Order: sequence, then C-alpha cells, then structure tokens
Amino acid sequence: MKQAKISEAVVRRLPIYLQVLNELHSREIQTVSSQELGVKLDLNPAQIRKDLAYFGEFGRKGIGYDVMYLIEKIRQILKVNQTIKVALVGAGNLGHALCNYNKYSKDNMKITAVFDDHPDKIGTRINNLVVQPMSELEREVKEQNIRIGIITVPAHEAQNVANQFVAVGIEGILNFAPAILRVPEEVRIQNADFTRELLSLAYYLNHEGEETSDESVMD
Amino acid sequence: MKQAKISEAVVRRLPIYLQVLNELHSREIQTVSSQELGVKLDLNPAQIRKDLAYFGEFGRKGIGYDVMYLIEKIRQILKVNQTIKVALVGAGNLGHALCNYNKYSKDNMKITAVFDDHPDKIGTRINNLVVQPMSELEREVKEQNIRIGIITVPAHEAQNVANQFVAVGIEGILNFAPAILRVPEEVRIQNADFTRELLSLAYYLNHEGEETSDESVMD
Repeated sequence: MKQAKISEAVVRRLPIYLQVLNELHSREIQTVSSQELGVKLDLNPAQIRKDLAYFGEFGRKGIGYDVMYLIEKIRQILKVNQTIKVALVGAGNLGHALCNYNKYSKDNMKITAVFDDHPDKIGTRINNLVVQPMSELEREVKEQNIRIGIITVPAHEAQNVANQFVAVGIEGILNFAPAILRVPEEVRIQNADFTRELLSLAYYLNHEGEETSDESVMD
Repeated sequence: MKQAKISEAVVRRLPIYLQVLNELHSREIQTVSSQELGVKLDLNPAQIRKDLAYFGEFGRKGIGYDVMYLIEKIRQILKVNQTIKVALVGAGNLGHALCNYNKYSKDNMKITAVFDDHPDKIGTRINNLVVQPMSELEREVKEQNIRIGIITVPAHEAQNVANQFVAVGIEGILNFAPAILRVPEEVRIQNADFTRELLSLAYYLNHEGEETSDESVMD
C-alpha cells in the first residue's frame, strides 16, 4: 500500500500515541477507543481517528483499536520495529540522564556509544558504556551503523560536535545545547533545548494572568 | 496598542529568535536583516518579517532590525523582562543538568527551589540550592511566588508530583518524565520527553533512506 506523505504534526504525535498505547499494554488493556485516547491525550477523538487513518483502517466501530496491533503498526511506521543505534557526545549530567532514561525505554532507540573529549570523562562508565574520546567516533559509527547523534555538550562546543557528526555520516541530530547549529540540508536536526520550552510556557502564564486581571475582557 | 492573539507556532519561535539575537548581541552586532536571521534559523525571511510584525513595526528597510531593541521587545512579549521563578522536583542527573544549564542562562527564568523526597537527596546541594523535601513545596511556592514547575522524576512518580504542583497553585508545568500527565484545564503543561524527539527523528531518517533506495521516486 502506498502511504501518503505524513505531516510533521502527525509524525510528532505518533510517539505520543505509542507512549499511551505502551502504557495501556503494560496494564494488559487490549482495546481502546478514540474517545478514551482523546481523554488521555487531550486531543479531539476525530483528530485521532484522522491521524491513525493515514496508515489504513485500524479501528472497528463500537470495538475500538486493538492496542497491540496499533503499537506494532506505529512502530513499523516510525521504523522502530528494528533497533536504531544512537551515539551521544557529552558525558555530563544531561548525558548521564539521557542514558539512564534510555536504559529503561521500551523503544528500540538505543544509545550504544558515548563520547567526551575531557580527560576526566574518558574511560569512565555510564551504565555499561565506556566513555570514549572523539577520535573513536568514526570507527564506532561505522562499526555499529549508528545513524543518529545526540549532543549534550555546552553551547560553545556544540557546532564542533555537529560538524564531526556530519563528517562521519550521521543523518539525524538531536541537539540539547542552547545553540543554533548549522548542518547540511540532508542532515535532519531537532532541537531539544529546554530553555525554549520554559520561555514559551512563560508567555502563556503571564498572558493568562493578564486576562484574569483585565476587567474589560468580561464580554 | 492592542496585540492580536499570537499563534502557538509563533510563540514557539520567539524563544529561538531570542536565542539568536542574544548570540548576536554577545558578539556586539547591532543590526540584523531578516535575510541574515533566515539563514541562521533556516526560515524564510518573509516568515520572519511576518512573525515579528505581530508586535509592531520593528525593522527598517535596508537597515534591518536593531538587535538590542528586538531583544527587549521579545523579552517583553514573553514577559521575561521580569524574573520568573521556577521550582524543580527530582534531583537526579536530569535535575542537576537543568539547574546547571539554568545557572548560565541569560534569560530571567530561574530555578529557585529544588525538591526531592528521597532521603539520600534531601539536604544535598545543587549549585547554591539545597534539595528540600516535598513537604516544603507549598511554603516555598507561596513565599517566592513561584508559578512554574519542572518535573524530572521517574515516569511512575510524575503524576503525583503534578498533582502536588496543581494543589499549591503552580500554573505551568514542564514535564520531562516519559508519562502522559493529567492536569486541570487552567494549568498549562508542556512535555519535553526526549524519547519522543528521538522517535520522530527516526521516522525522517528511515523514510529518507527509503526514498534514496527507491528508484521509482526518480521522476
């Protein structure tokens, strides 16, 4: 079956569906309706049905979606029904945190190599991974067929790491450093800088506060 | 001047503009064109002009935007021209990393209280903050007028922390735990779960790989 091009918004929602479905599965729940998913995700059930319809007819009226079938299908669409190997550069607190999160993850994205050029980090361990110097990056990426890289170094080192990722053929980068990085067009980069999230959260808080105190809004 | 309601997409881009402008300012660059911003951000200059026009006429043709003026204006719109205090619950690696990032941030969002109920965490220090038990949450939130909370506890503890945030009047939550949390409608919640970012990154990588290997795409 030929699949339509999926919008970025839908691609961003699929991991969220997967998360909820994994949770339902772990509680041994076998079917779920779009209404129930809607309540859990604070999304319109019609939106959910539309999103999932991209990939064929999953649901059955009055019965809902088969949880395990939907998990398998979304994993297949996201291509995480196979293991995807990830390299992480920056063995600080954030690097440790991501490795720990990842260790317990049910997804098939696995951080399988960690790098840091600081002498006090090289040779230390994060879980079962030994922190390696950047000179080992190319060898590991080739040997393990790593396609994704995570950057958790300070902002001023981030572009340098991105350049090295690109040079060894990394195709996708998740950047946690608060820096705007330039990479060639064929490399996809996503920013996960939490200060941005905080700032946009602030916008909503304060504006809501204003509305409450602004009596002219009482129409 | 009455401001139009700003779309969520624009609100999400404002922190990114702010980040680039701060960087330009630190390099003592005084004016920037929408073209230059476009290159840095990989955005269409027309989009940038449109985004910034929401807030009045900033730019001048042929001269561009005054960097410092734009910084002040965006800070004002995001309401981070005043200090916004943030409480963080979960003093693990991720909590440490966020506190460290925040310490060096030029923004006015400051983590000013850290909590964790695990006995081996209580009383330890992160930078200049002492980790407090959750029983101190309400007092600190009231005394410091904290409005935003960050959750960096494991997934199974996250809903409990969210409930406590809501109970003490926190208005916005940034959740790093890989869990879907339920909060009342008036509380805004943003998820910063990195596994979602990784999964959507995987979608693009693999599909791009397919296109390259799929000869029928050569139209």
